[in-house]
Amino acid sequence: MGSDSDLTVMKGAADIMEELSIPFELTVVSAHRTPLRMVQYATRAAERGLKVIIAGAGGAAHLPGMIASLTTLPVIGVPVKSSNSIDGWDSILSMLQMPSGVPVATVALNGAKNAGILAGSIIGAFDPEVSFRVSAYKKQMEQEVLGKAEKLKDAGWGNTFDE
Amino acid sequence: MGSDSDLTVMKGAADIMEELSIPFELTVVSAHRTPLRMVQYATRAAERGLKVIIAGAGGAAHLPGMIASLTTLPVIGVPVKSSNSIDGWDSILSMLQMPSGVPVATVALNGAKNAGILAGSIIGAFDPEVSFRVSAYKKQMEQEVLGKAEKLKDAGWGNTFDE
Amino acid sequence: MGSDSDLTVMKGAADIMEELSIPFELTVVSAHRTPLRMVQYATRAAERGLKVIIAGAGGAAHLPGMIASLTTLPVIGVPVKSSNSIDGWDSILSMLQMPSGVPVATVALNGAKNAGILAGSIIGAFDPEVSFRVSAYKKQMEQEVLGKAEKLKDAGWGNTFDE
Amino acid sequence: MGSDSDLTVMKGAADIMEELSIPFELTVVSAHRTPLRMVQYATRAAERGLKVIIAGAGGAAHLPGMIASLTTLPVIGVPVKSSNSIDGWDSILSMLQMPSGVPVATVALNGAKNAGILAGSIIGAFDPEVSFRVSAYKKQMEQEVLGKAEKLKDAGWGNTFDE
Amino acid sequence: MGSDSDLTVMKGAADIMEELSIPFELTVVSAHRTPLRMVQYATRAAERGLKVIIAGAGGAAHLPGMIASLTTLPVIGVPVKSSNSIDGWDSILSMLQMPSGVPVATVALNGAKNAGILAGSIIGAFDPEVSFRVSAYKKQMEQEVLGKAEKLKDAGWGNTFDE
Amino acid sequence: MGSDSDLTVMKGAADIMEELSIPFELTVVSAHRTPLRMVQYATRAAERGLKVIIAGAGGAAHLPGMIASLTTLPVIGVPVKSSNSIDGWDSILSMLQMPSGVPVATVALNGAKNAGILAGSIIGAFDPEVSFRVSAYKKQMEQEVLGKAEKLKDAGWGNTFDE
Amino acid sequence: MGSDSDLTVMKGAADIMEELSIPFELTVVSAHRTPLRMVQYATRAAERGLKVIIAGAGGAAHLPGMIASLTTLPVIGVPVKSSNSIDGWDSILSMLQMPSGVPVATVALNGAKNAGILAGSIIGAFDPEVSFRVSAYKKQMEQEVLGKAEKLKDAGWGNTFDE
Amino acid sequence: MGSDSDLTVMKGAADIMEELSIPFELTVVSAHRTPLRMVQYATRAAERGLKVIIAGAGGAAHLPGMIASLTTLPVIGVPVKSSNSIDGWDSILSMLQMPSGVPVATVALNGAKNAGILAGSIIGAFDPEVSFRVSAYKKQMEQEVLGKAEKLKDAGWGNTFDE
Repeated sequence: MGSDSDLTVMKGAADIMEELSIPFELTVVSAHRTPLRMVQYATRAAERGLKVIIAGAGGAAHLPGMIASLTTLPVIGVPVKSSNSIDGWDSILSMLQMPSGVPVATVALNGAKNAGILAGSIIGAFDPEVSFRVSAYKKQMEQEVLGKAEKLKDAGWGNTFDE
Repeated sequence: MGSDSDLTVMKGAADIMEELSIPFELTVVSAHRTPLRMVQYATRAAERGLKVIIAGAGGAAHLPGMIASLTTLPVIGVPVKSSNSIDGWDSILSMLQMPSGVPVATVALNGAKNAGILAGSIIGAFDPEVSFRVSAYKKQMEQEVLGKAEKLKDAGWGNTFDE
Repeated sequence: MGSDSDLTVMKGAADIMEELSIPFELTVVSAHRTPLRMVQYATRAAERGLKVIIAGAGGAAHLPGMIASLTTLPVIGVPVKSSNSIDGWDSILSMLQMPSGVPVATVALNGAKNAGILAGSIIGAFDPEVSFRVSAYKKQMEQEVLGKAEKLKDAGWGNTFDE
Repeated sequence: MGSDSDLTVMKGAADIMEELSIPFELTVVSAHRTPLRMVQYATRAAERGLKVIIAGAGGAAHLPGMIASLTTLPVIGVPVKSSNSIDGWDSILSMLQMPSGVPVATVALNGAKNAGILAGSIIGAFDPEVSFRVSAYKKQMEQEVLGKAEKLKDAGWGNTFDE
Repeated sequence: MGSDSDLTVMKGAADIMEELSIPFELTVVSAHRTPLRMVQYATRAAERGLKVIIAGAGGAAHLPGMIASLTTLPVIGVPVKSSNSIDGWDSILSMLQMPSGVPVATVALNGAKNAGILAGSIIGAFDPEVSFRVSAYKKQMEQEVLGKAEKLKDAGWGNTFDE
Repeated sequence: MGSDSDLTVMKGAADIMEELSIPFELTVVSAHRTPLRMVQYATRAAERGLKVIIAGAGGAAHLPGMIASLTTLPVIGVPVKSSNSIDGWDSILSMLQMPSGVPVATVALNGAKNAGILAGSIIGAFDPEVSFRVSAYKKQMEQEVLGKAEKLKDAGWGNTFDE
Repeated sequence: MGSDSDLTVMKGAADIMEELSIPFELTVVSAHRTPLRMVQYATRAAERGLKVIIAGAGGAAHLPGMIASLTTLPVIGVPVKSSNSIDGWDSILSMLQMPSGVPVATVALNGAKNAGILAGSIIGAFDPEVSFRVSAYKKQMEQEVLGKAEKLKDAGWGNTFDE
Repeated sequence: MGSDSDLTVMKGAADIMEELSIPFELTVVSAHRTPLRMVQYATRAAERGLKVIIAGAGGAAHLPGMIASLTTLPVIGVPVKSSNSIDGWDSILSMLQMPSGVPVATVALNGAKNAGILAGSIIGAFDPEVSFRVSAYKKQMEQEVLGKAEKLKDAGWGNTFDE
């Protein structure tokens, strides 16, 4: 992430990594304040064994795009709605609208959790165990929704029409 | 893709697949006009051997998100600027702002080419040969820019200051 | 509705249903977390006797559009301004900009109450008793406004000019 | 419609009415240029036998909302992207964001065709023959998409993976 | 104003009227809830002796435009940022983008005070006494700014450079 | 107007002035290129006998607001959609969002014609002859719409239902 | 700055000036409330020895652009997000979209601190001591980020992969 | 500039440099395609004698911001409206919304000419001859506007009122 002020949001990705038992590291790399560290981090990521990089940043968010220009690994961008952001549009467009040849896989505003699941899907496409855990995670979400539907029905909302 | 009117844009992804020698299929699956085919396509994709799904659609673009809800594979969304689109905002937001648990890796408006490269990066993270070809593609882009800089310099623009 | 977090908003539609004495059911069906339940719900709605479906969702709101693709019943969409929404634009555009052939009758942001009244108007077009109750509801609103105008006048604001 | 300059767009609704064999009338009623005619038209619509009103207008589009305030019939609004429109946002927001109690069923920008189908769905909910024709219309769309998918496959795009 | 919930904002216009000693009336006329009252109010305004109408409304704000269609008096529109507004865009565009022939003099979001001053300018263009009071109002504003500049200078901020 | 490139748009206001037989002058005053001329023009306008100032400009359009700060006359602003404009938003917001105390009566994007009619309404509020001509102008518009409705009916569109 | 209500934001520029030991003055000059003072201030700034002018304003923010039209000094604009602002878009576009010939160096919304650093860069380009202090400021920022990265690593986040 | 496709726009800056007799160089440096060349170019710019850097780019435009992070020189950003741009918002926000500490002096969309004049103002603040030429450039613009005003007057538009 570009700043430790993004930690509240970006922790969501770390939580999913743990839930999916995927080893990871979490650090601060700023495109604008530590550009040379960023170059070094991005160019060495693949050889260090990373498979996916999740980069979150706010405002004119250059971190994911610059990392994507320096590595062949897939880069997932999390637009963070920082203070003084213009409703989040700035970070979204700074990641999404990357030029031809240098994509950033952008997820929803503050969508660090989804960045984690996307990373899980990517790794899971080549690792059946991770895929299984992603699948289990989705099934659990489904069960929660079904449980809520059941609860609403028990509360008398959902039984006007025969099923 | 959701409609064959998206073919002009989406062909960009197919071209990259060919350039990176990644086997692929290209078809029309409409979330709104063939919802049951979409369910079948998405639920069977993983077992058929697909590793990544690229889904392009315009307007209220539900295709990538619905496919993501039906598979554990990573889904890349290409927002297409269709006629009567509201400057492309509709397709972008319909893909980007997916709820927690169901991410779509969104790329730039009409960014099918980048979707292809992202797919290449994803596969390349686990397949050194594909990674090598992605890397070569990026190096070629770099060479092109350097060539253009050289040309501008030869044309007399770039030599006011010593290097 | 797509999530029980939408209940605060969507209850507005249920309230109107009760006020207009229209039988209804209220449940949770998530396009992204329970896609198969959604398919089943939508395809069976008409034969179960439903006349109108009101679907509310936030973010990349696919629920109303997907239901509309699976039924011939009229579908009313309520864009919900969820947390991390981009000012509600995401849910509005995800419903409004449906492709040709699959309309969603979209109402205002968080406009669940209006979705209820629209459903009342639709049913009332074919059921004089419901139409009468919708008409009475509108007349009551009119009386309330007239009462407020009277109150302002009594407070001395509105009598500078002869009537 | 508010102006005969909207005819090119609004004819799409008339075409669907004919395709679904639903009797209709098409006329010009301007909220701003013929406000009294609008009042008369809207207040008499129900007793004249109309079941649904489709109102299309551009810019600060007040026609659908004003008609909705004067009738208990369901009103479908078609935001038209007129010249000097601000990307269509003006007509969309002027219809969509109606106050509590007076809904307009808004469809996509220039979505007159979808307004027609929505009217068909509304009438079809109470008239099995119309419902059948709406259903047939949707099935035909589905067949067209399947035909295009087949064509792409025959062209050699879609057969890399076994089905 | 369209609703008494707009009173907090619209009172700003009444305050200016009093400050400029311009007789006025303040009432509630809803385009959507009391359309017939609105027609009567607007068509009778000129003969009742009104010279300018200030109309404030939120959301799909039709009140100023509809009144402008029913009178030859100048109509000033105040876009009110109501709850569930989309950042005020809805009320702004619903007033500003009036079709050719029916202008609304739109002021800033929640700019009731400015609507009052604009009314003062309009009346002042034909009434020297009102013009004098508008002028005095502006001079007072100027004095206040100059006083603040002086205060900052006394506080030691503004004296690095000679004057 | 701020630039003679705005003449195509702003001529619409001059045409209305002529149609309403209101004496006027049309000139170029640039806030940014001739700021001192602007100050002189605005401060002398009232004593020269002007009653209303219409100011059109594009981009960061400061002309109407600056003139309003220098005169007590009412100032009507016409946001012009210039080349390199951001969809007209820049000129609209630069005029509309004036601070408290210095209003600009903003009309639609490129709405010079409406600026003329608004000026007519303002003058007409104090000059019965001008008011009469504004009224006649509006009646003519009404007749044109009624003529078009008649024509559509004759063409067979509007006679499905009894009147 | 255009108003003393902008002081909370604009103080950020003053703080940087002090940190970089650059002499400065801070005052209130309103384009709309004290236009003549603004003309005088801007036309005399260069001869008084100023090298850069930082102008902050909100809403229809004309101050930076008007000053730029009256001086040859570089003008830095700080868009301030005032109350009743439309998400800051108004002040941003009122500064950014200046016509050809009269640029304003616009920085981020509420970015007074950055305006100060930009002024430091401008002066530093011609004054090695200031340049040195700007450089030191940037190095300090870098150290802070590196310190945070170290802290995260110590907390156990960043050591899954070998460095 | 980030790509030679930006040359049509960016040539405007070069033209102004020549008009103001300021030595300059024009080259292509891509943040995303030649990131290492960019690092080298930016870190060496000051010692090579450059005083100001103008960086133009489109889409997710990272070039100006990244250069600003690597130099203490002032960086002027020109947002270019590239094909597939979202109305230019992407490049504007990617430059404007830079984080605290790393400003980019952003000018209007496609405003390369203004970037050149801003560079002239910056250099002119420390070089009287350049300042004189910037001043002459502005006076010429003023004369052109006055000439146009004269021409309109001669054409009979501007002489209704005594001067």
